[in-house]
Amino acid sequence: MKTLSTDPALVHTFREVWAELSGIGRAPDGGYLRFAWSPAEVALRDWFRVQAARRGMPVTDDGNGNLFAVWSPTSDERLSGAAPGGVLTGSHFDSVPHGGAFDGPLGIVSAFLAVDLLRERGFQPTRPITVAAFAEEEGSRFGVACLGSRLLTGAIDPQRAAALTDRDGISLGDVLGATPAGARPELVARFDAYVELHVEQGRALAGPIGVASAIWPHGRWRFDVEGEGNHAGTTLMTDRRDPMLTYAFTVLAANKEARLRGAHATVGRVEVTPNATNAIPAAVRGWLDARAADDETLAGLVEAVAKKATERAGRDGTAIRFTAESTTGEVRFDPTLASNLAGLLGGAPILPTGAGHDAGVLSAHLPTAMLFVRNPTGVSHAPAESASDADCAEGVKALARVLEELSAQPLVDHDEGVAR
Amino acid sequence: MKTLSTDPALVHTFREVWAELSGIGRAPDGGYLRFAWSPAEVALRDWFRVQAARRGMPVTDDGNGNLFAVWSPTSDERLSGAAPGGVLTGSHFDSVPHGGAFDGPLGIVSAFLAVDLLRERGFQPTRPITVAAFAEEEGSRFGVACLGSRLLTGAIDPQRAAALTDRDGISLGDVLGATPAGARPELVARFDAYVELHVEQGRALAGPIGVASAIWPHGRWRFDVEGEGNHAGTTLMTDRRDPMLTYAFTVLAANKEARLRGAHATVGRVEVTPNATNAIPAAVRGWLDARAADDETLAGLVEAVAKKATERAGRDGTAIRFTAESTTGEVRFDPTLASNLAGLLGGAPILPTGAGHDAGVLSAHLPTAMLFVRNPTGVSHAPAESASDADCAEGVKALARVLEELSAQPLVDHDEGVAR
Repeated sequence: MKTLSTDPALVHTFREVWAELSGIGRAPDGGYLRFAWSPAEVALRDWFRVQAARRGMPVTDDGNGNLFAVWSPTSDERLSGAAPGGVLTGSHFDSVPHGGAFDGPLGIVSAFLAVDLLRERGFQPTRPITVAAFAEEEGSRFGVACLGSRLLTGAIDPQRAAALTDRDGISLGDVLGATPAGARPELVARFDAYVELHVEQGRALAGPIGVASAIWPHGRWRFDVEGEGNHAGTTLMTDRRDPMLTYAFTVLAANKEARLRGAHATVGRVEVTPNATNAIPAAVRGWLDARAADDETLAGLVEAVAKKATERAGRDGTAIRFTAESTTGEVRFDPTLASNLAGLLGGAPILPTGAGHDAGVLSAHLPTAMLFVRNPTGVSHAPAESASDADCAEGVKALARVLEELSAQPLVDHDEGVAR
Repeated sequence: MKTLSTDPALVHTFREVWAELSGIGRAPDGGYLRFAWSPAEVALRDWFRVQAARRGMPVTDDGNGNLFAVWSPTSDERLSGAAPGGVLTGSHFDSVPHGGAFDGPLGIVSAFLAVDLLRERGFQPTRPITVAAFAEEEGSRFGVACLGSRLLTGAIDPQRAAALTDRDGISLGDVLGATPAGARPELVARFDAYVELHVEQGRALAGPIGVASAIWPHGRWRFDVEGEGNHAGTTLMTDRRDPMLTYAFTVLAANKEARLRGAHATVGRVEVTPNATNAIPAAVRGWLDARAADDETLAGLVEAVAKKATERAGRDGTAIRFTAESTTGEVRFDPTLASNLAGLLGGAPILPTGAGHDAGVLSAHLPTAMLFVRNPTGVSHAPAESASDADCAEGVKALARVLEELSAQPLVDHDEGVAR
């Protein structure tokens, strides 16, 4: 193994390892097409197994598509991963369509390099360190974000998940060749903490590293507008029932209502039937992504958009229906853990995020924290997403420091069940 | 051949022949997917050849994908189609996505049945009657409406046409296995008139049959909105450059400006990059279909929409560009011919249409007329498009009457070149 103990060596190693992934699933625009269980994402899972094997870390699959590679401290018994009270770290490989390189993979690469750094320093954990690759975090293939961590923690019914289909009509059950295993409480109970390192997704960091305080409540609402398909040339404007008008109005209403509330609303996906230049559509389906600082503001936002859109549909002679596809209440990460880690990292800033993460799902079950690595463009879910090699090396060092602390001694007083 | 000379017999025969086509390219929603040179449309072309062969009408292909079946009056020489001064009738087989059954095929089926009706009556034309099936009238595959008739008349360069690609990147040249033949003036010169029977596409007819006066000027403008792809959750509303907002505004502006002018504007097709729920799009591309009673109104409409959209793009931090993909000036069908045919049909109403047709392209080269068959739903380019069997039988009779008149004697004084 190469020396990592100096900054230039770590930067160099990060760059080399990162380059192994950079060609996988890359589109001509520089964005990534790494949908869950696509050939590109499967290649990244293979890479995960190779990295784990090189480090002597046995890999298990939890029956939900999530992978776990374990560095156990002492005995063969611990190698089996059966010892309680370990620390979990990792992230996901899958991307949004034409997404950036960092969202997800950075957390997994950094986890393996943090293990290397700790070993090079001669560190011996007293508690297992497990690196995870969670499945379908973005929800880009089956429409439910954090699908792997939701299955693991029992937040989604495995039968319902098995029936989810992608745009080609292929179900998750088809992909897995079985119904997912669903909740694995005995597996979750092995961990006393989860720490996910992730590229920052705004422009909130002045320094290289931050610690998350909370995830805004957020959700996805599908809205289906039904009208009447007709000829674009011959149908009088007054005879039309054009669902595209209702759709367009809803897009603008969502933008306006979000701005009024200091919230976020986005319509980034649309499907039109039949989607022909010279035909008034019969139906338009859009997806509203909405997020706000608290649950009440979010509910008010979605309610206001739906009310205005329904009024407009009445004027357009169309019908509109909103369906919540996934919603996530506010997540407050363990404040003591966040504050301890920020202190450990020399006073790193503590900040909220508008993005959902597996850490948000896991935080309902164990003390959870997130580390953010600075993103100079502030762009995410797009090719311009970025982080410098130097900042990524800082991220590896920070994660190693945190894992060292959390795996050196029990984090939780098992009598009290409270994070220290 | 069955008897057609009574109305019930003709209705029965129409229903039987129509049923031969009704399963071809039909989607579960009852709409049709008959894109040019798709397996469904090729099956219809095969049907055309069978129908022509049954009637002893030799078929030629003009090298542009248009088919011609000729009923020549007298000699072997005329069977070759070389004799000048015939009458051309027909329409097209291709559909918009999930289009109706009648738009196109009704004109071809009616033409063959009109030939049967004339023969049953013992009519002998003194001039050839040719039935045509034009290629890619809707432009649903290669994006240029009336592609076959434009090639035949030299209205589009064959090299440019050969390079047009469909949504899968397949070019017209690939489909034809060659560059299209392009302009065939010697073929066009064989005809003294073109009469296209078509289902009416509004609700303008009280009786079964009408005659066209004009086609509104119309066109398709692609508009490309470029923004900045970003994360839907983490990007501040004030930091966004969201092209979906500009797109939505343009849709509503087009609707408003068209209504103000008594014109028609439709945005029925959109493509979003990357089209993901949790990503602000990087780019949105829409298509504006606009039509008006005169060229000046149409130009004013498109200019107003582009101006407002550009202003909005400035506020959204996006860029918008309009590109005319195809435009067609006003078509006035030969007024003497229209009035003569209306008289021949017992005072059928003469009315304009907002829909483009091959007849519009051909009208620049020879006297052209259109017959419309009543459409009780007023819906077109959608599954609900309809015409009763009884009205379709009336259409066959009307077309037979018109062909009888036009093929019995020279329509044009070749010294003067003017329709009588």
